[in-house]
Amino acid sequence: MQRTFIKDLKGKIGETVLIKGWVDSRRDHGKLIFLDIRDGWEKVQAVVPPGEMTETAHGLRDEWTVAITALVKQRPEKMVNVKEANGTLELEVQSLEVITKAHELPFVKDTELNLDTYLDYLPLTLRTKRGRDITRVQATIIEAYRASLRNQGFTEFQSPVLVGGDAEGGAAAFSVNYYYDQKAYLATSPQFYKQIMVGAVERAFTTTKVFRGEKHATPRHLSEVTQLDFEMGFVQSHLEPMAVLEQTIKDTVRTVVERHGKVLKEFSVEAPLLPDKFPIFTLTQAQEIIEREFGGKAVGELDMEPEHERQICEWAKKEHNTDFVFITAFPTAKRAFYTYEEPSEAPFSRGFDLLFRGLEINSGAQRIHDYDSLVAKIQSRGMNPELFAYYLQAFKYGMPPHGGSSTGLERFTALMLGLHNIRETTHFPRDLNRIDFLLSKNA
Amino acid sequence: MQRTFIKDLKGKIGETVLIKGWVDSRRDHGKLIFLDIRDGWEKVQAVVPPGEMTETAHGLRDEWTVAITALVKQRPEKMVNVKEANGTLELEVQSLEVITKAHELPFVKDTELNLDTYLDYLPLTLRTKRGRDITRVQATIIEAYRASLRNQGFTEFQSPVLVGGDAEGGAAAFSVNYYYDQKAYLATSPQFYKQIMVGAVERAFTTTKVFRGEKHATPRHLSEVTQLDFEMGFVQSHLEPMAVLEQTIKDTVRTVVERHGKVLKEFSVEAPLLPDKFPIFTLTQAQEIIEREFGGKAVGELDMEPEHERQICEWAKKEHNTDFVFITAFPTAKRAFYTYEEPSEAPFSRGFDLLFRGLEINSGAQRIHDYDSLVAKIQSRGMNPELFAYYLQAFKYGMPPHGGSSTGLERFTALMLGLHNIRETTHFPRDLNRIDFLLSKNA
Repeated sequence: MQRTFIKDLKGKIGETVLIKGWVDSRRDHGKLIFLDIRDGWEKVQAVVPPGEMTETAHGLRDEWTVAITALVKQRPEKMVNVKEANGTLELEVQSLEVITKAHELPFVKDTELNLDTYLDYLPLTLRTKRGRDITRVQATIIEAYRASLRNQGFTEFQSPVLVGGDAEGGAAAFSVNYYYDQKAYLATSPQFYKQIMVGAVERAFTTTKVFRGEKHATPRHLSEVTQLDFEMGFVQSHLEPMAVLEQTIKDTVRTVVERHGKVLKEFSVEAPLLPDKFPIFTLTQAQEIIEREFGGKAVGELDMEPEHERQICEWAKKEHNTDFVFITAFPTAKRAFYTYEEPSEAPFSRGFDLLFRGLEINSGAQRIHDYDSLVAKIQSRGMNPELFAYYLQAFKYGMPPHGGSSTGLERFTALMLGLHNIRETTHFPRDLNRIDFLLSKNA
Repeated sequence: MQRTFIKDLKGKIGETVLIKGWVDSRRDHGKLIFLDIRDGWEKVQAVVPPGEMTETAHGLRDEWTVAITALVKQRPEKMVNVKEANGTLELEVQSLEVITKAHELPFVKDTELNLDTYLDYLPLTLRTKRGRDITRVQATIIEAYRASLRNQGFTEFQSPVLVGGDAEGGAAAFSVNYYYDQKAYLATSPQFYKQIMVGAVERAFTTTKVFRGEKHATPRHLSEVTQLDFEMGFVQSHLEPMAVLEQTIKDTVRTVVERHGKVLKEFSVEAPLLPDKFPIFTLTQAQEIIEREFGGKAVGELDMEPEHERQICEWAKKEHNTDFVFITAFPTAKRAFYTYEEPSEAPFSRGFDLLFRGLEINSGAQRIHDYDSLVAKIQSRGMNPELFAYYLQAFKYGMPPHGGSSTGLERFTALMLGLHNIRETTHFPRDLNRIDFLLSKNA
């Protein structure tokens, strides 16, 4: 018999089906044994009638895998559970085969765990409803993000992870022991490569891993994250990459809401508010609003404090009915060296951040496109242009005004689901103390 | 005026448009100056009439970027060039603005170069028609591959690059200097993680970077490549992942042929032959065919020699009208430790390779799913199960029979376009001697 996926049972009332899956739980009610069976997508309740299967059914434990043939039945009215996807039906088991057994679980699977335990047991805890929901929402985000960029004329490329030097210096890059005692580094950003790709395809994007070796121990930093990066040529200003980003975010949010509305409810989080146009404030404007609305001192600071990011978002939600806010006109001195500064706008750059529900999820800018200006800027920051020779070729051989931005997949996913630690929105988080297990355990 | 992309000019005959792009070439014909202007997508010929723009136009050099307003005109019949996308029209330039200048190019851009020069100058050479075509074909491959897997019920996840140990030992893994003098490693495969994800979502895929530190210096090895990996649960045998792979490859090839038929012609390569069903030969059957058809000794060898891969593909193309051939039943001893061996089929495993036009582009298998068998196998290969504790959790807590496979994006792209070196189908190849520049230059 062909296997039926549990999500497809609804159309099969009265039929006998073969399902396969994990025992999600087992409950004995007198002589009846109730099983919740879970496959990759859904759960269903199966009832084992008293008889020759009882012994096998009684021996089942959580996470054993089974193959079951059963009659699909409508549940009696008073047994219907509208909260469950298959709450209107149940399976009357006709045959039951154990495929694989499991050891006793170290804890009840869908219970609340402290974070380190959750992470130490990801091969088990990713099987929880919560873990699977986060996985599927994140898969939709990256799919929708890429699709939106493609619709806007962008071409995907694969940005390298291994790079030849820690050219930028700022963000501590991890070093790699390459061939013949040479050192390589892990990319801290696909920035240089996506700019190079502008010369080839004009609008380029990549979804890639980046690595940061700073000793951060916050809920919003990891040493390995996934970035959604794009870069586009022939722009007039930073407003064009901002418009592309806004469209991409809107398309992505709408797709998530459409496909995962039920999950958002289960995570007790509203669908993100999308105004017609994301409001744009300069850093100074935002700081003035913060002082006026929340008191304290903000104007004159060179960047947004985490608390100020939360405050401007709180205010914008109330006043502008939006969960997204752009901040622009940061001091050039505080941005990456390749950030463009229009002389008439100095000392402010054409960089921007996008805040979502109180946290920066994206950073972008118009970039310097003139070769001589870029070389001069590298020198003025005390760096050596020779180390940038490869990157600089793109500018030497004709680069148009261009700009782009970079979204952190884990942060975007976390804010979408109202989660506070991106360790929950990374499948296998790596940080100061952890690569799969806590590192001390491996030492 | 709103900018028009050059690919959209065909519908605008008689209109005045603004285009922006790079000077792809300039030719002076008496008082007329002809420019080929290229944007991210297409090229068009623009004619600068004698007059006040002549001096500016005469000063233009390859790769300068320009903004041009022009009248879109039908070309005179005898000037039509059917080989060019815009060969039936030309632009009569009305205004011409230089946006950025470029240094003199080190060589003529679309000329044939030796490979090292091509790679040393990728920021320039990726702008060639050839470089851009490869980029766009590869973007289509990865997009179509992911889409096909999604249509077959697979969920994307992000597999980690940083791993805690070189557990498998076999393929030399690059080591990374992690925090506090600890060592991490670069993943040689997403294998363990995609198996873990089977427990969560049953059908999982990832497009991810993997790293191999062996000292290969062949046209088909790099130290960093992109893999297209999937894994699926509740299979009966390796035939199910093979069927999923076949569907995915077919969907991908069809999409490439549909979108890039013209590029395939320009690369002088046929559309890949897709039979109703990819032929499947056991290793022994393939070796017998090779001996019979090509002579020499093959039967009894434990793996396919590169020459034998070419021969079986040559024969299968002639006899089965296919560019794809599956080889199965390799000796278990020659496959990864997690490869499943059905006792009745010993000493042959349920691993498979997919050959495309003479080269292996994919390797896969049914995997061991039973915890005790897997632990025993690890021990029998002289490895320490404790180093696999994280991975082994997936099996300890109930894993169904499962299998999957892994396609090399660069190889697939190369064979699709008839290219012989995957350095041409990687945007920024890394190998023994090169990270962007030849490493000796940086030393």
